[in-house]
Amino acid sequence: MASGEDDLIAKYFRPLANAPASLGLLDDAAVLEGLGDDLVLTTDAIVEGVHYLAGDPPDTIARKALRVNLSDLAAKGASPVGFLLTLALRKANEAWLAAFAGALGEDATTFACPLLGGDTVSTSGPVMISITAFGRVPKGEMVRRHGARIGDIVAVTGTIGDAALGLDILRGGRAAAALPSHRREAEYLIDRYRVPQPRLAIAAALRASAGAAMDVSDGLAGDLAKLCAVSGVSATVELAKVPLSPAARAVITRGAATIEALIAGGDDYEVLCAIPAERWSSFAAAATAAGVAVTEIGMIAAGSGTPAFLDAAGNAIKLSQTSYSHF
Amino acid sequence: MASGEDDLIAKYFRPLANAPASLGLLDDAAVLEGLGDDLVLTTDAIVEGVHYLAGDPPDTIARKALRVNLSDLAAKGASPVGFLLTLALRKANEAWLAAFAGALGEDATTFACPLLGGDTVSTSGPVMISITAFGRVPKGEMVRRHGARIGDIVAVTGTIGDAALGLDILRGGRAAAALPSHRREAEYLIDRYRVPQPRLAIAAALRASAGAAMDVSDGLAGDLAKLCAVSGVSATVELAKVPLSPAARAVITRGAATIEALIAGGDDYEVLCAIPAERWSSFAAAATAAGVAVTEIGMIAAGSGTPAFLDAAGNAIKLSQTSYSHF
Repeated sequence: MASGEDDLIAKYFRPLANAPASLGLLDDAAVLEGLGDDLVLTTDAIVEGVHYLAGDPPDTIARKALRVNLSDLAAKGASPVGFLLTLALRKANEAWLAAFAGALGEDATTFACPLLGGDTVSTSGPVMISITAFGRVPKGEMVRRHGARIGDIVAVTGTIGDAALGLDILRGGRAAAALPSHRREAEYLIDRYRVPQPRLAIAAALRASAGAAMDVSDGLAGDLAKLCAVSGVSATVELAKVPLSPAARAVITRGAATIEALIAGGDDYEVLCAIPAERWSSFAAAATAAGVAVTEIGMIAAGSGTPAFLDAAGNAIKLSQTSYSHF
Repeated sequence: MASGEDDLIAKYFRPLANAPASLGLLDDAAVLEGLGDDLVLTTDAIVEGVHYLAGDPPDTIARKALRVNLSDLAAKGASPVGFLLTLALRKANEAWLAAFAGALGEDATTFACPLLGGDTVSTSGPVMISITAFGRVPKGEMVRRHGARIGDIVAVTGTIGDAALGLDILRGGRAAAALPSHRREAEYLIDRYRVPQPRLAIAAALRASAGAAMDVSDGLAGDLAKLCAVSGVSATVELAKVPLSPAARAVITRGAATIEALIAGGDDYEVLCAIPAERWSSFAAAATAAGVAVTEIGMIAAGSGTPAFLDAAGNAIKLSQTSYSHF
């Protein structure tokens, strides 16, 4: 006498639970065998209409839900172990669930992060997908936020601001108007909003070299301020060095966005890190070997103030907003 | 330049994050030091209007959110290590949050299960509280669902059906009409709905004696059917032996509920277990020593059918519904 909920789990999610720790989703809990490694725990939820748009394809929603968590693991220097999924749905839409679970399973395989368990509940409100992800690091080696030191090089992976522009395009904002005949660029930016690229490939390089790291999820400016605050330092960043994609550069060139807005926009899911200067060349080499672009954008400085973002003339710009906040 | 969300976390939740593993909620992740023990992972979400009523006091909502997870740890024979909290709120109501966080902190202390991290997001829909809890068991000793054997004694902790009656009273159902002048009984049943009692005190006894265990959350009848199904067995239960509280008995006596409805009602959060007969007396003694009532209600039997619930004449009753399902 299986219930509807149990049938859904059996049909769509049991096929993803291929790790022994999941116990085939047939128990109250999952169990991770004790090993010498430390276990890194992170949880991030995405909500319909807040972190993704109601009309977004279910496969990209699934990928985003998992990847925002994998991005945290990457920034902490961890290798994925598995994840728990909590799904709050209005009703069971089988086509949506099939596409969602299919893409989630593909990503779980790609990133070697199997489904270990979860919970499925009903809600009358927006769909919410809450994932708790587990990673492993050698004992004592998790990369912290608080280890930045004066003189460290501030670097980011990938490019900044694409996701904020992708969201702007989906909402029919100024960026959409700026790229009417540049369909490929617009699609690139939308994809960057919908499907983050967790930088797991540089986890080992971060463990070896980074003094501090975090993932950029709420906006580069605000997230760097957080990293500096817990490390008891400040920083200077040269705006001209902030890495932008050709598509983002095209939007700025057309006057439809500013670099200030991009460094305060959210959803980048890149890694922000502070690398001691003497380790920079080995870190950069390891990142290149791992296939991840890293760009030096500034330096950790003495002080406790908000990081300074310098324009071409070397003057600190004033940011009206540094990051996204829910409340 | 802390955002509203960061301020809320600092004000209400950082005081709860008193374990080193939480890193003071100042990092992207928490980190559990690697030990020889196995780690038990469980996640359960509660949704306003589904698992609790919109008007329920915030302190009982907090306790329920944590305790439904602790109940899973108890059934698996685990000791709590800590938890991650994901909170989806419509807006930041400071009075609500203060009461919620205060009670959550009290329970975290009571059950030695500190807050390790989490995520706070906004939603336009019902409030949702999703908790992932971690427990520890000696290597290989997690109590599974699938270990029930023919001849094992089927037992439950506490009493069954109180929470279903408490919910019925809150909704103004038949149980409310049956207890007009019995305010104390009604309050007891409502409390049982709002604030489950996780049976962590018998975790060690379960590890020592239970062949299989799970927590009763969706209804005794349906949950026993699940335990039997994964164990490849069936069971017989004598309805007269199912433990009822005096308040629940009063409602049944007044004809406002049936035992059949109570064993199909949800939210008991008691432990259901299968104990090999030769270990029953030592298990019962250990439970008594731990201050947890356990009651023998039946026996694991051969077969693969739905467990039989026998009336006083020894005839199997027919259940129209065995458990709660979300879809």
